[in-house]
Amino acid sequence: MPNPLRIGLAGLGVVGQETARLIIEEAGHISAQAGRDVVLSAYSVRDANKPRAVDLKDIAHVPNAADLAARDDVDVVVELIGGADGVAHETAVATLGAGKALISANKAMLAMHWQELFSLSAAHNAPLKFEAAVGGGMPVIKMLREGLAGNRIHKISGILNGTCNFVLSAMEGGVSFDEALLDAQNKGFAEADASFDIDGIDSAHKLLILAKLAFSPELSVTDIDVEGIGGVDMHQVQEAARHGGALRLVAHAVRGDGGRIDMRVRPEIMPGSHMFSHVNGALNAVQIDAVPVETLTLMGQGAGAGPTASAVLADIIDLARLG
Amino acid sequence: MPNPLRIGLAGLGVVGQETARLIIEEAGHISAQAGRDVVLSAYSVRDANKPRAVDLKDIAHVPNAADLAARDDVDVVVELIGGADGVAHETAVATLGAGKALISANKAMLAMHWQELFSLSAAHNAPLKFEAAVGGGMPVIKMLREGLAGNRIHKISGILNGTCNFVLSAMEGGVSFDEALLDAQNKGFAEADASFDIDGIDSAHKLLILAKLAFSPELSVTDIDVEGIGGVDMHQVQEAARHGGALRLVAHAVRGDGGRIDMRVRPEIMPGSHMFSHVNGALNAVQIDAVPVETLTLMGQGAGAGPTASAVLADIIDLARLG
Repeated sequence: MPNPLRIGLAGLGVVGQETARLIIEEAGHISAQAGRDVVLSAYSVRDANKPRAVDLKDIAHVPNAADLAARDDVDVVVELIGGADGVAHETAVATLGAGKALISANKAMLAMHWQELFSLSAAHNAPLKFEAAVGGGMPVIKMLREGLAGNRIHKISGILNGTCNFVLSAMEGGVSFDEALLDAQNKGFAEADASFDIDGIDSAHKLLILAKLAFSPELSVTDIDVEGIGGVDMHQVQEAARHGGALRLVAHAVRGDGGRIDMRVRPEIMPGSHMFSHVNGALNAVQIDAVPVETLTLMGQGAGAGPTASAVLADIIDLARLG
Repeated sequence: MPNPLRIGLAGLGVVGQETARLIIEEAGHISAQAGRDVVLSAYSVRDANKPRAVDLKDIAHVPNAADLAARDDVDVVVELIGGADGVAHETAVATLGAGKALISANKAMLAMHWQELFSLSAAHNAPLKFEAAVGGGMPVIKMLREGLAGNRIHKISGILNGTCNFVLSAMEGGVSFDEALLDAQNKGFAEADASFDIDGIDSAHKLLILAKLAFSPELSVTDIDVEGIGGVDMHQVQEAARHGGALRLVAHAVRGDGGRIDMRVRPEIMPGSHMFSHVNGALNAVQIDAVPVETLTLMGQGAGAGPTASAVLADIIDLARLG
């Protein structure tokens, strides 16, 4: 068997812990799928003494995440720190600059630093993968980059934020906005700063990533017209549900006349006849209109440790198979 | 730019013609996506004089499809002839045996000759790709092989035959079984021998391919309990619709106790709360339950020239990117 693929893991939040656990506990299954062993060589976390759900005492701890990139026993850095700048960004730049593969779930960083990261990736021949950045467990990045590679995309619509969808779904059942949000936070769906979810910023970051892949890397988050769910009241939500539909936070990117791309995020009433009205709880969904494939819809858990770790593992196994 | 990827196309039915047209007319887009040119070097068709929707007069015609594999100007053979045996099978064996990549949309051949084809693929280091064999334009093969590679699959459910779904949907609106089937045939959805659609055999072949990928290559089509839609009457269909649900031909493969895999295809009443009740016309859908991703649903056009050609192009571009 070829050499093992050696992982440096940056960040041990809910997704990081689950990713570490799966790499260790599912080693046999992963190695069978990947055609080689995948091992966790080192990790980095701010507070190494905090109790975790996974035992990493035999694995090297690196105080500065960016230093993972320079280690001889690390082939791939998995960045699960989050945040557009700071340590996450430093780690990404150090990894790609060292010619090593980067896997990131960091939609904010990708949305803000796309060109820099892709330039580094190209200059240093370092793969840049980010299936977990959009749509949790749904392989929507792979769908756009590979599955629909022969298509011309016309429109992307999505329910891209599990927290907002969880809150709106709970409000249909009479739970208050604040109570539903707290529940989402307790379940580990919400971002550390939940205002990114509620204000639609997280959805905008994810929409931008999809639109950059489908339309143009030049698109910017400032091109997106964003309205969050902060102004939504229970009456509105229940009225939509009473008519067989659902109020959902929907993101759109549409190729219009002359190739102009219109992008927006806003609460919309989806009628019962539209798939999106059946997307409940922390589910996400993406609908893609393209030629010649026509319309494709993908639905799945858009947040949570397991589904997001599933996407990270897919990227790891893809890299391992490259040899 | 690296050398072009040179295609030999076997079969010029509706999917073959659309694939040829796209390779020629979308050459610029495909080459931008693939990182190299993709050219149609040669094709094979039973009756070269029959009028076609695409002009191939400057492209070499080969009377025997299996001879495409031996040509110096062919790197990949795309088999769109169909049928488990005969010319399709000869062509597949010749291609893989020559160490060249095979792309096939032929679910019957894959279902019946899986072990032989994968053994040849491994022995000759020849890629074997078949995204178009299941689910038309939906990238469900890629989802199972790559997107969910880190998961353990527990259950696969699918609406896998566009013709049956088209017929059942039309019957909801009062169209007779025979009339709806004729319409599906005129629209180019139905197999050449429509009894494969109606009797559930086509669904069983596709289910078997998914189950072999997800569970075990040892599974056989004889392990599937198959019932088609021949016995369905209009009353049954309309009664289901009147209660907000839908009668659908559903295929299941489930991992049961002790790892035993149960597989069946049969008409089932799906309640309005299940996504499958909203899958209309020639749409297909697949739902996968797995750990850690939980439940993923994919929906899209399961038949027709464009969606199926989209899947063939995805395989071609994947191979081109491999370099």
